Amino acid sequence: MASADIKALIFDVFGTVVDWRTSITREGQAFGTRKGIDADWAAFADGWRSLYDPAMARIRDGNRDFVKLDVLHRENLLEMLDRTGISGLSEAEIDDLNYAWHRLDPWPDSVAGLTRLKSKFIIATQSNGNIALMVNMAKRAGLPWDAILGAEVVGHYKPEPEAYIKACDRLGLAPEQVLMTAAHNGDLVAAAACGLRTAFVARPTEHGPNQTKDFKAEHDFDYIATDFEDLASQLGC
Amino acid sequence: MASADIKALIFDVFGTVVDWRTSITREGQAFGTRKGIDADWAAFADGWRSLYDPAMARIRDGNRDFVKLDVLHRENLLEMLDRTGISGLSEAEIDDLNYAWHRLDPWPDSVAGLTRLKSKFIIATQSNGNIALMVNMAKRAGLPWDAILGAEVVGHYKPEPEAYIKACDRLGLAPEQVLMTAAHNGDLVAAAACGLRTAFVARPTEHGPNQTKDFKAEHDFDYIATDFEDLASQLGC
Repeated sequence: MASADIKALIFDVFGTVVDWRTSITREGQAFGTRKGIDADWAAFADGWRSLYDPAMARIRDGNRDFVKLDVLHRENLLEMLDRTGISGLSEAEIDDLNYAWHRLDPWPDSVAGLTRLKSKFIIATQSNGNIALMVNMAKRAGLPWDAILGAEVVGHYKPEPEAYIKACDRLGLAPEQVLMTAAHNGDLVAAAACGLRTAFVARPTEHGPNQTKDFKAEHDFDYIATDFEDLASQLGC
Repeated sequence: MASADIKALIFDVFGTVVDWRTSITREGQAFGTRKGIDADWAAFADGWRSLYDPAMARIRDGNRDFVKLDVLHRENLLEMLDRTGISGLSEAEIDDLNYAWHRLDPWPDSVAGLTRLKSKFIIATQSNGNIALMVNMAKRAGLPWDAILGAEVVGHYKPEPEAYIKACDRLGLAPEQVLMTAAHNGDLVAAAACGLRTAFVARPTEHGPNQTKDFKAEHDFDYIATDFEDLASQLGC
């Protein structure tokens, strides 16, 4: 397809732009050191993340009103603390650990690639993360977004169709003018079903040794790139 | 007050960040030249803008569901075209003229001042303009926002209290951590009533020769600045 037709790129963030597993593990280790808590923080990160999709599913299924991801992350954190036998934390300590999701590090190519892409296109988040999470992450990591979109702006969690369709509407663009970029086949299949263009960027170490899928593009996406710099090159940036 | 307590600055945009009157006049003149239409485009800009607040008032008052500002601007444009006897335009030409609001120029100090402020604070739009309008304006003018907030994100037009309160909520901040910046006394009075901090920046030529108010701060705002560079200095940026 001609990149001239594309006006905006919207991005999955957790796993695609930032390395949540390494970052949450690091945050957990630092927290454990401060508190004198010995735990397998990589396993803690994996467990915490495993509760993410089921928590959103209740909202997608209509069994719960929309709440922002900070709220779901905190509920899931309490579950993980209980599972791992960590107790005695103050509310402020729990909040601080919960906001580890606001302090995720980008993949090495993310900032440079996004900066190139921004020179030619609107670049926006299309994450299930809430606005404050995305803004704080971007400030810390230097992610140069033009706009923070995503679940909290439109009131729907991916992969609900409304999440993609309303994002395009908010940008004043038709779906075919918007390129959804993600490291997850399922996210892109859902976006394509709504008429968006698609770009797959492989992040084969997202889940560390536990990764079982999304090693490569499994569908005929519009672009398939090794990283954001490669995507920028393919798009003529 | 100590600027250390402030985490984010949110900004009125039309008149405070950008010079809408000069820009709309320029856009009208260029449109008139292309179409061979002779009109007083400064008066056209003033008339178009005069329909802005009444259009939002119907929504604020609950007499109409929320629609984004692009829609109100277009309805008001049709009214102005009718009033000034301009006819025979295509739908695409009307849209293009309507999107003049996406192509407003910043005041001379806006980009440099915002860039300094961004080094220390989250900076976000808190405009009645919709997301696409703000994003397109920012891309063209180089406005370095961290986030696009405002009416379309929260579903309320200023000066409704919900507009200010929900903006703080979206940033995950308490109102007293957020500094509302505007060239309009009324906007700041409404923000202060919601607990936000306030900064007045004078824009005495916003309305050209027709300006009747907002020449200076008329209340005891937290900061009173001559322009964004001055505000950045006062805030230690």
